[in-house]
Amino acid sequence: MTTIKLIKNGPYMVEGDDVKVFDWDSQQYAVAKHPFYLCRCGASTNKPFCDGTHSKIGFKAAEAAVSGSGDKPAR
Amino acid sequence: MTTIKLIKNGPYMVEGDDVKVFDWDSQQYAVAKHPFYLCRCGASTNKPFCDGTHSKIGFKAAEAAVSGSGDKPAR
Repeated sequence: MTTIKLIKNGPYMVEGDDVKVFDWDSQQYAVAKHPFYLCRCGASTNKPFCDGTHSKIGFKAAEAAVSGSGDKPAR
Repeated sequence: MTTIKLIKNGPYMVEGDDVKVFDWDSQQYAVAKHPFYLCRCGASTNKPFCDGTHSKIGFKAAEAAVSGSGDKPAR
């Protein structure tokens, strides 16, 4: 399973054994470690990865999920 | 396998049978369909999902992967 967890006012944290990241030409990005963090604010200088710029620009993104609206988690 | 493909100057396209999206409180977002698109420009009004705002704001994000730098794709 792959999980994408939103960091509040920050990036996507991606966890999973079998997840790959590609550009629009289907070239694969090297992912140095897991989990990894993908830019969500649009301002990283190391896109698609997070470089912490969200903090500097005051990125606000706190749209929480509605409780119970997701799929039932696997148990 | 989960694949995250960057749309040039646009969102992340996420494909996979077993991928879930959570907020910082571990509440799961409902994903209506697959693949789905996660905001990458920081300006969607429907975060974490893309609503097309990247086009309106002129989001530029064209950092391609370096050829051959990724893991070897599974065959």
